[in-house]
Amino acid sequence: MALNSKVNSLRPAEIADLISHSPNEDQLALFELVPPEIAVQVFEFLSFAAQKFIMNSLPPEKSAVILREMSPDDRTAFFDGLPQASINALLKLLPTDERAIALSLLGYPKNSVGRLMTTDYLAVKMEWTVAQALDFVRKHGKDSETINVIYVVDDQGKLIDDFRIRELLLAPLESKIKDLADHRFVSLSVNDDDEVAIKVFSREDRVALPVTDSHGTLIGIVTVDDILHLMTKETTEDIQKIGGTSALEFPYMQTSFLQLMQKRASWLVLLFLGELFTATAMGFFEAEIAKAVVLALFLPLIISSGGNSGSQASTLIIRALAVGEITLRDWWKIIRKEIFSGIFLGTILGCIGFLRITLWSAFSNIYGPHWLTVAATIFSSLIGVVLWGTVTGAMLPLLLKKFGFDPATASAPLVATLVDVTGIVIYFLTASIIMNGTLL
Amino acid sequence: MALNSKVNSLRPAEIADLISHSPNEDQLALFELVPPEIAVQVFEFLSFAAQKFIMNSLPPEKSAVILREMSPDDRTAFFDGLPQASINALLKLLPTDERAIALSLLGYPKNSVGRLMTTDYLAVKMEWTVAQALDFVRKHGKDSETINVIYVVDDQGKLIDDFRIRELLLAPLESKIKDLADHRFVSLSVNDDDEVAIKVFSREDRVALPVTDSHGTLIGIVTVDDILHLMTKETTEDIQKIGGTSALEFPYMQTSFLQLMQKRASWLVLLFLGELFTATAMGFFEAEIAKAVVLALFLPLIISSGGNSGSQASTLIIRALAVGEITLRDWWKIIRKEIFSGIFLGTILGCIGFLRITLWSAFSNIYGPHWLTVAATIFSSLIGVVLWGTVTGAMLPLLLKKFGFDPATASAPLVATLVDVTGIVIYFLTASIIMNGTLL
Repeated sequence: MALNSKVNSLRPAEIADLISHSPNEDQLALFELVPPEIAVQVFEFLSFAAQKFIMNSLPPEKSAVILREMSPDDRTAFFDGLPQASINALLKLLPTDERAIALSLLGYPKNSVGRLMTTDYLAVKMEWTVAQALDFVRKHGKDSETINVIYVVDDQGKLIDDFRIRELLLAPLESKIKDLADHRFVSLSVNDDDEVAIKVFSREDRVALPVTDSHGTLIGIVTVDDILHLMTKETTEDIQKIGGTSALEFPYMQTSFLQLMQKRASWLVLLFLGELFTATAMGFFEAEIAKAVVLALFLPLIISSGGNSGSQASTLIIRALAVGEITLRDWWKIIRKEIFSGIFLGTILGCIGFLRITLWSAFSNIYGPHWLTVAATIFSSLIGVVLWGTVTGAMLPLLLKKFGFDPATASAPLVATLVDVTGIVIYFLTASIIMNGTLL
Repeated sequence: MALNSKVNSLRPAEIADLISHSPNEDQLALFELVPPEIAVQVFEFLSFAAQKFIMNSLPPEKSAVILREMSPDDRTAFFDGLPQASINALLKLLPTDERAIALSLLGYPKNSVGRLMTTDYLAVKMEWTVAQALDFVRKHGKDSETINVIYVVDDQGKLIDDFRIRELLLAPLESKIKDLADHRFVSLSVNDDDEVAIKVFSREDRVALPVTDSHGTLIGIVTVDDILHLMTKETTEDIQKIGGTSALEFPYMQTSFLQLMQKRASWLVLLFLGELFTATAMGFFEAEIAKAVVLALFLPLIISSGGNSGSQASTLIIRALAVGEITLRDWWKIIRKEIFSGIFLGTILGCIGFLRITLWSAFSNIYGPHWLTVAATIFSSLIGVVLWGTVTGAMLPLLLKKFGFDPATASAPLVATLVDVTGIVIYFLTASIIMNGTLL
C-alpha cells in the first residue's frame, strides 16, 4: 500500500503535519497507519484539533495507551483545551500513578509554569561519582524528557545544582558530583506566570530549566520546545489584541463563525459606543459646520492623522513593554520623547496640509477667498491632534499596565477612537479661534 | 570590594544583564571585574549596544581575545549591527582560520540561515563504534556549541544522519553507528530565509538543526537559543509594522530621535497623502453636506467603524499567514468567512446606530423631522462600510503576500486609510439614495 510506505518513510513530526492538515475523515485512517512504536510521538506533534478528533474516534483501549505514554506536559496541554467532562472521562483511562501526575499538573493555575512542566527528568545526588551519574542516565534516560540537563538534589529533594550533560561527559569518571558543583543554577517557580518562563529562557539560552515549589524542592522541568510554542501563542494573542479583537482560543480557520463573531463583535460594539461620542461632539459644532462647510471636508484627514500617530506610538510602547525593554519607571523619558515626536511629526503633516490648500487655491477657488485662514487652521490643528494622538497612544499602554490590565488592550482601533473624539474638539476649537471674524 | 564579590556570585547571563542595564560609564568597569574565564560568555550575553560600547573601549589585545573565542554565530550577530569599516578593523584582530570562518558566515545574505549558523559542531563517521563516537565527543565536545546532537557525515562531508546524544548514551558501546542510523534527519539549507528556520524548529521540537549547502554537505548548525532571539526580533518587527511604523533596527529606548522620526514620518506622510483623498472625496459631496449638515455629524462614526472592522480582519489574517495556519490557496474560504462576518458585524452596529437615533429623536428634535430617514441611512451605510472594511482588511495582506511584499505592511492605519476614502463614498451614495426627496 503506497500510503503505508509513505507514512513509514516520514519522521514523526512530518507524519503529524500531514495528519493535522488532512480533512477529518482521513485523519483516523492515517493515524492507524502509524507504526505503534512512534504513535505516541506522532500524537504529541498533532495540532490540538487533530488530537481531539483522533482521541474521540479511537477505541478506548488505544486512547488509554496513548494517554498513558504521553509526556506529562503534552498531556496537560491537550487537556487544557477540553471541557471538564471530557478530561474526567480521559483521566479514568489512566493508571493510578499517571492519573496522580496528570491531576497535580492540572491543579496549577492556567498560564502558570506548572502547566508547562513535565515530571520526567533526571536527578542525581551530590555523593555520586560521575560514573555513577552516567550509569543512572543510561538506565533511566529513556523515560526522561531530556537528558541534556541533569539535576542535583539533596536527600529532601531540594534542588542544589544543575549540570549540562556535556559537563558530565567531559569530566573524569571518578570525580564526585559535589566536586564539580558550583551551586549556581537558575530555576522557575511553579506558580510563576508562564511569561516569566519566556523571559528567563530568552535570557539564559538554556534548553531546559528546573521548576521548584516554594520550598525549593525540584518538582519538574520545562523544556525549550514548549517555550517556542508558548511564544508563538502569546504573540498571536498580542497581535490580535493590537488589531482590536479579543484573543482567539483556536487558529483562525478552526474558529467557528459564532466564536469569531463573539470575539470581534464585543470590541467592535465597545469601540462603536465610544465612537458615538464623535456624533455628540460634532453636534456642539453643528452651527460652525453649517457656516463653513469647508471645515467638514478636512475632518476625516485631521482625525485620522491623530489616530495613525497614536497607533504608531501605542504599538511601539506595547512591544517594548512586552520584551521588557522599558518599564513603568521610564514613563517620564517616554512621554518626553513622544511630546517631541508629536510636535515634529505634526509639523511635517501640518506643512503638507498647508501646502496642499495653498497650491489648490492658487489654481482654483475651491476653498473660497479665505483659503489662507483655512490653511492656517489645518496646519495648527494637525500639530495639536498629532501631538495629542502620540501622547495618548504612548501613555495608554503604560496606564493599562499600571492598573493591572494587559497593555496590548491599547489596540490601534481603541487609540484611534479615543483620539477621534478629542481630535474633533481640538479641530473645531482651533478653527473657532483662527476663523473668528472671517468664516465663523 | 563588594561589587567584585557580587559579580563573582552571579552567573554569566545575570552579569550580562546587569552590565547591559547599567549606564555606559559603568559598563567597562563592570566588565573588567568579570573573571577572565567567563568574560567571553558574558560578552556573548550582552545587549548589542553594550557589546559595541565595550568592544570599542577595550584595549585591542583584549578585544582580540574576545573576538577569537566568541562562538561564530554570536560573532556574526555582533558584526551584523556594525558599519563595514568597524567590521574590517575587527576582522584584522582575528587569526587567519577564525577570520576565514567569520568572512564566510558574513558572506551569506542578511536574514538567511547562514547568518544564524555556527561551525562548532561534532560530526562522526558511519564506520565508528558508539564507544569511538563518545570518545570523540569527550575529546572535542568542549569546543562544540552543543553536544546534544551529533551528526554523521560520509567521507565527502555529506550529512547522512543525526543522533541525539541520548541515543548514543543509551546504545551498547560496541554497536556501530551505521547499525543505529535510520537515515531520517531534517536539515536547513544555508540560503533559506531565517523564517524557515523558525517554522522548522517549531515543527520539530529540536534543540539544534544541521545546515547543509546545495550539495548536502554539512557546513554548520543552528541552535534553538538563536531561534528564540530571532522569534522575538521578527515579532517585534511585525508588531511595529502592524502599528504603522517601519520596523526599528534597535530597541525603542536606544533608537535616536532622528532615526525614530525617520521610521515613523515616512509611513505617517504616506498615510496622510492617502488620507488627503478624503478631502477630495468630501469635495464631491459638499452640496449634500451644506443641505444636510446632520450627515457630517455621523461621518467620523461611519468611517471609523469601517476602519476598526478592517483592522480586526487584517491583523487576524496577517498573524494566521505568519504562523503558516493559512496560505494564499485559502483565499476563497477566507473571503467567504469575512463576507459573512462583515454583514453580521455591520448589522449589529447598524442596529445600535439606528436605535441611538430613534431614541434621541424620541426625546428631542436634534435630528429634525426626517430622523427616520437619517436612521435608515446610518443603518444601511454601516452595513456597507463594515462589510467593505472587513473584506478589504482580509484581502490586503493576502494581496501583499501574493505580490511578494510583507503582509504585515497591511497595518491597521493603512487599512483604516483605505477604508476611510471608500467609506465616505459609500456613506454619501447611500445617503443620496435614501434621502432623495426628503433631506437631499
